[in-house]
Amino acid sequence: VISPVGVLPQAAERLDASEEIWPDEVRVRVERLNLDAASYRQLHEQHRGDGAAIRDDVRETIATRGKMHNRVTGSGGMLVGTVEEVGRDSPLGFLPGERIATLVSLTMTPLRIDDGLDHWDGHSPQISTDGHAILFARSLAGRLPSDLPTSLSLGIFDVCGAPALTRRVVAEKLKRQRYCSVLVLGAAGKSGAFSCAAARAAGADPVVGVVPNEAEREALEQADLVDKVVLADARDPVALAEAVRESFDVTIVCVDVPGCEHGAILSTAQGGTVVFFSMSTSFSAAALGAEGLAADVTMLIGNGYVPGHADFAVSLVRADDNLRSLLESRVMR
Amino acid sequence: VISPVGVLPQAAERLDASEEIWPDEVRVRVERLNLDAASYRQLHEQHRGDGAAIRDDVRETIATRGKMHNRVTGSGGMLVGTVEEVGRDSPLGFLPGERIATLVSLTMTPLRIDDGLDHWDGHSPQISTDGHAILFARSLAGRLPSDLPTSLSLGIFDVCGAPALTRRVVAEKLKRQRYCSVLVLGAAGKSGAFSCAAARAAGADPVVGVVPNEAEREALEQADLVDKVVLADARDPVALAEAVRESFDVTIVCVDVPGCEHGAILSTAQGGTVVFFSMSTSFSAAALGAEGLAADVTMLIGNGYVPGHADFAVSLVRADDNLRSLLESRVMR
Repeated sequence: VISPVGVLPQAAERLDASEEIWPDEVRVRVERLNLDAASYRQLHEQHRGDGAAIRDDVRETIATRGKMHNRVTGSGGMLVGTVEEVGRDSPLGFLPGERIATLVSLTMTPLRIDDGLDHWDGHSPQISTDGHAILFARSLAGRLPSDLPTSLSLGIFDVCGAPALTRRVVAEKLKRQRYCSVLVLGAAGKSGAFSCAAARAAGADPVVGVVPNEAEREALEQADLVDKVVLADARDPVALAEAVRESFDVTIVCVDVPGCEHGAILSTAQGGTVVFFSMSTSFSAAALGAEGLAADVTMLIGNGYVPGHADFAVSLVRADDNLRSLLESRVMR
Repeated sequence: VISPVGVLPQAAERLDASEEIWPDEVRVRVERLNLDAASYRQLHEQHRGDGAAIRDDVRETIATRGKMHNRVTGSGGMLVGTVEEVGRDSPLGFLPGERIATLVSLTMTPLRIDDGLDHWDGHSPQISTDGHAILFARSLAGRLPSDLPTSLSLGIFDVCGAPALTRRVVAEKLKRQRYCSVLVLGAAGKSGAFSCAAARAAGADPVVGVVPNEAEREALEQADLVDKVVLADARDPVALAEAVRESFDVTIVCVDVPGCEHGAILSTAQGGTVVFFSMSTSFSAAALGAEGLAADVTMLIGNGYVPGHADFAVSLVRADDNLRSLLESRVMR
């Protein structure tokens, strides 16, 4: 961290992206950056779709901040590259030449671009480029599975915390009770579909998925990931409760629109657990909502890191062609 | 709910505050409203300390919305009153004539004022008034203990979710491990002091309290609620980690300023638990922070409702004169 002093890399204004590594670091030759959806949408709107202006903005941000950290959205993205140099004390276990993707945000990854982003037209969030990035001792990155397309692997890595935490929560419930019912809000999205598959793999029964429209209902039914699909607006707590008609031991929130906190709480049994993966979650709406409803539910902030999360997600995809097809359709659009 | 249709009372624009009750409701004769600190501060700033203007604003809000729900802060407060009529199906167990305080926010409590707030000068968040309020079947309220001053009881009810959830989290850890260390950020505030007392009562050892200045250090040491007091800025993760020097099984965040998420995560052991009670908590800072730090910690949204929370908090105060003194000094300032 160059400035300000005392903060961690994510909160920093500027990072040191020089080429030399410390003994516990790894340098990666970057081949591709993936801006996160919120960041690219903001850039696209600000520059009214002008590709050259978007490119200049991103180039300028990386040069100034030493990382790709959108000032408006506060978000970054991830990168793909090849391990170039590994410090002797690095705990990450990589070897030079391995192809990897980062699992932590670009907002905390030192980055320098060498080709001026000249091969990118600014019209897509995927940037083919050349440069280098530095991984710290605690930076997470995953080896890209050689049997899966890169774009699919990236889509998997992007949300791999969700299935891992879902599995853990369901497994803990099943230590204490014989059955565990699971409701997934936003079940046809990437993290939602993964959560359904993980809940089933962990032994949940039934698994019910909520989707907002007919197209997603069809996609989810075809994928055969849940015992029942319910069509409802998760932002309307009363309508949602009426549509799902029972309360669940575990509710997983994967909907990417704000305002689903009360519906999730109301659909969860007393003593149950709500896991919020959606970045649109409002902390105070959840805390005050549960209190206002006298709901004795455990509410978890969906931590994107669980040890072994990337391997578990890849294993789910390898084992289930339906899940794979659904994820591929989400990654490609 | 009068409008909009389909939302729960807290999210409603307007509630029906008429006098008649449904069979599962309770009507309360209101004697006092306590605006929450954030709401009163906002009103005070907006009207530049003009008491009459503040009063007009509050009167207008209650008349228009059927509840005291500050439009800017989104917050409310609580009320004290006497039970006037109890519907035959009310599950709350109150009898007419009992003096109670609400434990849920005024933002979801139908309220009508009869005296035009004429006895309030607008210069304090405590409003002596006359009117009525309606409690729903699931509205929480507590009988005021006759052996404690009303202001102290209100202070206790205000934060009673914190000690109850702290006790539960520590007790669950101690089922699986022999010792449980607890760190409390903002330990000299109301919810912080309560969390320290509850952690100790549940068997945590050691309990370490973090405070931001000398005055709070002295107050906390005098109260003898913790094994060690540490002076540090909880917003500075690196400084905090250096000051506390170890990682804890459980970290409780009671600091009422933003930006403490990363410090709390970094001070917590792998496999540990962070409980966020502060309404200043940022959901995304916590979720992305833990991921960025590769921290395998369970992060809980501090649910203000745990069954029996008010009784447990009152019992802690009755049993510990030091805790009582510290709370009294916080309530009186």
